[in-house]
Amino acid sequence: MNRPESRRTDASTDTREASVAGHAHAPAMAAGAPPTAIERWALRRLLRLAGNPPVHFVLWNSVPFAASDAPAVARLHVRDRRTLWQLLSNPELRFGDAYSRGDLEVEGDLVECLQAMYRAFPAVSEQNRVYRGLQRWRNRAGLNTLAGSLNNIHRHYDLGNDFFRRWLDEQMVYTCAYFPSPTLSLEQAQKRKMDYVCRKLRLQPGESVIEAGCGWGALARHMARHYGVRVRAYNISHEQILYARERAAAEGLAAQVEYVEDDYRNIRGRCDAFVSVGMLEHVGAGNYRTFGALIDACLAPHGRGLLHSIGRNQPCPMNAWIERRIFPGSYPPTLREMMTVLEPAGFSVLDVENLRLHYAKTLEHWLARFEAHSDEIGTAHGAHFTRAWRLYLAGSLAAFSSGWLQLFQVVFTRSTNNAIPWNRAHLYAQEP
Amino acid sequence: MNRPESRRTDASTDTREASVAGHAHAPAMAAGAPPTAIERWALRRLLRLAGNPPVHFVLWNSVPFAASDAPAVARLHVRDRRTLWQLLSNPELRFGDAYSRGDLEVEGDLVECLQAMYRAFPAVSEQNRVYRGLQRWRNRAGLNTLAGSLNNIHRHYDLGNDFFRRWLDEQMVYTCAYFPSPTLSLEQAQKRKMDYVCRKLRLQPGESVIEAGCGWGALARHMARHYGVRVRAYNISHEQILYARERAAAEGLAAQVEYVEDDYRNIRGRCDAFVSVGMLEHVGAGNYRTFGALIDACLAPHGRGLLHSIGRNQPCPMNAWIERRIFPGSYPPTLREMMTVLEPAGFSVLDVENLRLHYAKTLEHWLARFEAHSDEIGTAHGAHFTRAWRLYLAGSLAAFSSGWLQLFQVVFTRSTNNAIPWNRAHLYAQEP
Repeated sequence: MNRPESRRTDASTDTREASVAGHAHAPAMAAGAPPTAIERWALRRLLRLAGNPPVHFVLWNSVPFAASDAPAVARLHVRDRRTLWQLLSNPELRFGDAYSRGDLEVEGDLVECLQAMYRAFPAVSEQNRVYRGLQRWRNRAGLNTLAGSLNNIHRHYDLGNDFFRRWLDEQMVYTCAYFPSPTLSLEQAQKRKMDYVCRKLRLQPGESVIEAGCGWGALARHMARHYGVRVRAYNISHEQILYARERAAAEGLAAQVEYVEDDYRNIRGRCDAFVSVGMLEHVGAGNYRTFGALIDACLAPHGRGLLHSIGRNQPCPMNAWIERRIFPGSYPPTLREMMTVLEPAGFSVLDVENLRLHYAKTLEHWLARFEAHSDEIGTAHGAHFTRAWRLYLAGSLAAFSSGWLQLFQVVFTRSTNNAIPWNRAHLYAQEP
Repeated sequence: MNRPESRRTDASTDTREASVAGHAHAPAMAAGAPPTAIERWALRRLLRLAGNPPVHFVLWNSVPFAASDAPAVARLHVRDRRTLWQLLSNPELRFGDAYSRGDLEVEGDLVECLQAMYRAFPAVSEQNRVYRGLQRWRNRAGLNTLAGSLNNIHRHYDLGNDFFRRWLDEQMVYTCAYFPSPTLSLEQAQKRKMDYVCRKLRLQPGESVIEAGCGWGALARHMARHYGVRVRAYNISHEQILYARERAAAEGLAAQVEYVEDDYRNIRGRCDAFVSVGMLEHVGAGNYRTFGALIDACLAPHGRGLLHSIGRNQPCPMNAWIERRIFPGSYPPTLREMMTVLEPAGFSVLDVENLRLHYAKTLEHWLARFEAHSDEIGTAHGAHFTRAWRLYLAGSLAAFSSGWLQLFQVVFTRSTNNAIPWNRAHLYAQEP
């Protein structure tokens, strides 16, 4: 199927003017002239580096371009020569930018297209090292200093609670849910996740909990309400903390839950349980030892801890586009890297569970709700923003469902603590 | 309570002549003279390095010596000056040697004494570095080359099946059992462990399994009999392989189970499941990458794997005495170190479980059976051997129950395999 050069979707047509800052369109770069031999060679080489995914390109002037004879899962329409050269020069970053601007269109199912690309992509250990090294250097992540973290977190989590409310569950939980059955609603599955975390921690009434990175505070409220514990929950996102405090007050939980607007590095005090759900991705591998020492300073001798984090099978920086445009400073660790939080302090790992398929399911829900509200989101934030977030949610879904990203829940305690569960049957005893 | 210098237990008295090779007794070293100030200072210093455990020493001439005012869990009787200087010069190795010879006696419960010592011992990260470095250098482990492994394994596992039969279960399973209820018999718990491993691997009839390090072959037979799979099981212990083959033939499983007398480094072929229970301890950290590459070469795209190994919370060599006298070449890895088997090949970790209390319970059973047969064992192997193995079993029990050793079961698969269990409830669905 050939498409005329001028073919654009509605979503992109109405945003040509709203193109991303710093990417004002250069004068037409002879987009009409057909791709040259060197451009075709370079694109072929790029696709080979990417494992020859089963997608076809359609270059400007409707010139089709296939990496292989395999049937295409989707067609990628590249608007002009400029976009192609951006893709060639820094594909990891520019793919997302071009998609967000509407200069790269996906014909076919976006999630399936991205899944096919992730599946084709060589494992980290099999990638071209020179090429990857160059990409990593170009796209090196921002530092997670105290000030850097504040800026990084502000850029993502302070986009406005109204935006997140449109596609998160009613409790505003922005981490992987747990679906004992895949047919549960998102609301049910987030409640089940919070409960699962509490049960893995074996919370007892009257105990004290420290939470590092509490989002909009749902887990802290859940623990206080259903397990009778006192929680001190830290977060450096101003908007999230305000929301969390208001909601705890409205629900009569203000005496049990204290939300502290501060960096995890300033956590002090003593606790029976330490929990961090979806913050380690923002800590940065260079700070893991500090984070572990901090948990060591807080946790009581009989204390239990749980770390819940997006992870990898092999070390690899966060996708450059997500790191730059969506989640600055983020880095998903491998399980080996996560151990550098716990090992120096001598913690004993009791249980690790990989919930990646649950994150894919969670993202299905988020993406469906996002699409159901994309018109309002577009009105409020513009089409470029909307396309960027669609790509982020669809790409994350594809990454978890294709095994490119993992979700690790790690339960630990002190090595000398013998009050540990005899086995894990209790976690499933009350499953419906 | 003071004891005369000549006080000896029956077990040690009858083995003074059978003292360990290379430790022929020197002429009496003026054992009658009281301990000098420097000896008392050195012992005090040694006990401080060991965290001042709540044990009292009774030196020759009945001179009592306490590290602290804490009530003693046990009294350690040191026969003579020579034994004290051996302890002072290389305590990790010489404690076991002196106990085995009967030159060091424990008055009180041996397991409780060792537990108290393990509990007092500082975490690896808090130990005196110069002292530890010196100890490690002195007690560095033998290499696990092909020939080295053969010798190391021969020295432990080829002690004679009759010896192990006296205190293992009827199936001769020499790894941590799984007790869904702590009151299960050892026989039941070993069957439950084998079943648990099969369920974690989700074996299907007709599938092929490769087992690295099969001991006397019980797991391979269990998988074949109860799960209808074909198993190729490797081991370099000649005596174990002969036993395993005979038993499989007698039980009509010879067509399903092939026992191969060869090193894990020579494993070839393709399998749906790869399992290794209690072998990684003998592989040596320097070979983990090789081991992982080998699993990578064998495992089918949809394949599952399970590694079961004794482990640590922090890196630390195996206790020198155990490494020299009982398990040459052994090294229990941390979970981080175990990941160096799986991460380079890009495997995806699905589940990690720490079963250390189950190993303590297993060792309780083994030690009780050992004691019940200690007379026959003494007759067959001598009192020195009997005391050494008593110390090894009691020390292992103490190490697992005090959190000094861990037992990790790690389930993994390929990153692209989406046919993974939705959650872990199925492992407990049929629990009684």
